[in-house]
Amino acid sequence: MIFNESVKSTRKEEMINITPLVEKALHKSGIHSGISVVYVPHTTAGVTINENADPDVPRDILMGFRHAIPSSLPYAHAEGNSDAHLKAAITGSSVTIIVEEGRLQLGTWQGIFFCEFDGPRERRIYIKFLS
Amino acid sequence: MIFNESVKSTRKEEMINITPLVEKALHKSGIHSGISVVYVPHTTAGVTINENADPDVPRDILMGFRHAIPSSLPYAHAEGNSDAHLKAAITGSSVTIIVEEGRLQLGTWQGIFFCEFDGPRERRIYIKFLS
Amino acid sequence: MIFNESVKSTRKEEMINITPLVEKALHKSGIHSGISVVYVPHTTAGVTINENADPDVPRDILMGFRHAIPSSLPYAHAEGNSDAHLKAAITGSSVTIIVEEGRLQLGTWQGIFFCEFDGPRERRIYIKFLS
Repeated sequence: MIFNESVKSTRKEEMINITPLVEKALHKSGIHSGISVVYVPHTTAGVTINENADPDVPRDILMGFRHAIPSSLPYAHAEGNSDAHLKAAITGSSVTIIVEEGRLQLGTWQGIFFCEFDGPRERRIYIKFLS
Repeated sequence: MIFNESVKSTRKEEMINITPLVEKALHKSGIHSGISVVYVPHTTAGVTINENADPDVPRDILMGFRHAIPSSLPYAHAEGNSDAHLKAAITGSSVTIIVEEGRLQLGTWQGIFFCEFDGPRERRIYIKFLS
Repeated sequence: MIFNESVKSTRKEEMINITPLVEKALHKSGIHSGISVVYVPHTTAGVTINENADPDVPRDILMGFRHAIPSSLPYAHAEGNSDAHLKAAITGSSVTIIVEEGRLQLGTWQGIFFCEFDGPRERRIYIKFLS
């Protein structure tokens, strides 16, 4: 069984908190102890875990990525979104979270973020639980 | 059971599409629903998931990494390949892909790439399926 | 069952080899074949796999990250540690290692490193085995 969820980004770059979506799927799965794999089937978007308290943190993360990976490099790819492909490679296509006692074992300040690097778009998120 | 596969890079830096290799292992495993872990047991190579259509995308990814992590920094490691160790840390040593209905649940444009950062070399790839 | 371990960093930035800690947990788990997920429940620390022979390699990795993600960017987050959040996003919150014949299938030169980016602090590490 796989959970095939959707998320809609509204800006070019955006980090969207999808923790509630993963928690809802976990509840439906009925898994008590195991792992959760959250997977993004796109090549200009990723997924990461980071601070879910101050919204300045996701903003700073996107800004830091733009500094490290400028959109102005002499890229060859004709679509003009190679910086987004690079940011997706850096964040990665999946995160794995441990499940214990029926709950995601996230740290106090952690949230799961879908990372849009070439929006706005309608995107998919796959979630799978293993026990 | 673990699949212990090999791949041969032919350049200093190279992204090699290993999707067919993972699909072949999945077929042999007979797994219908679960996950696939693709693991690189090296410290100057990694693995990532990105666009498998335009070959300019992998080229741009390698170029962007060279921009972010120059080989000219005042590294201490005597072998002179610290930039390759950094790029391996950034891409990561493994990717996890969801398996459902006997197939890797990759997105339309996604492929699995072995990332050589200090080649050319003969390299190993470990693949494990869990259901 | 989850292993809830602790590690104490002693500097602002530090890569601590936690391979023995993961191996001890694996031995206790009794798992013969499967995967190990090593998870860091923090937002200014991460975990990575890299060279466990020359201590200059972890030092160079931290130096390369400081080059790519300067602490001097015009960050908005008031705590002043946004560079640490970025480095955590780049390394990631977890690593997955294949277990076969009761042993972590690490490469010859690989070790598992807890990455402190905003220390010194007492930190947690969660370890879970699936077979």
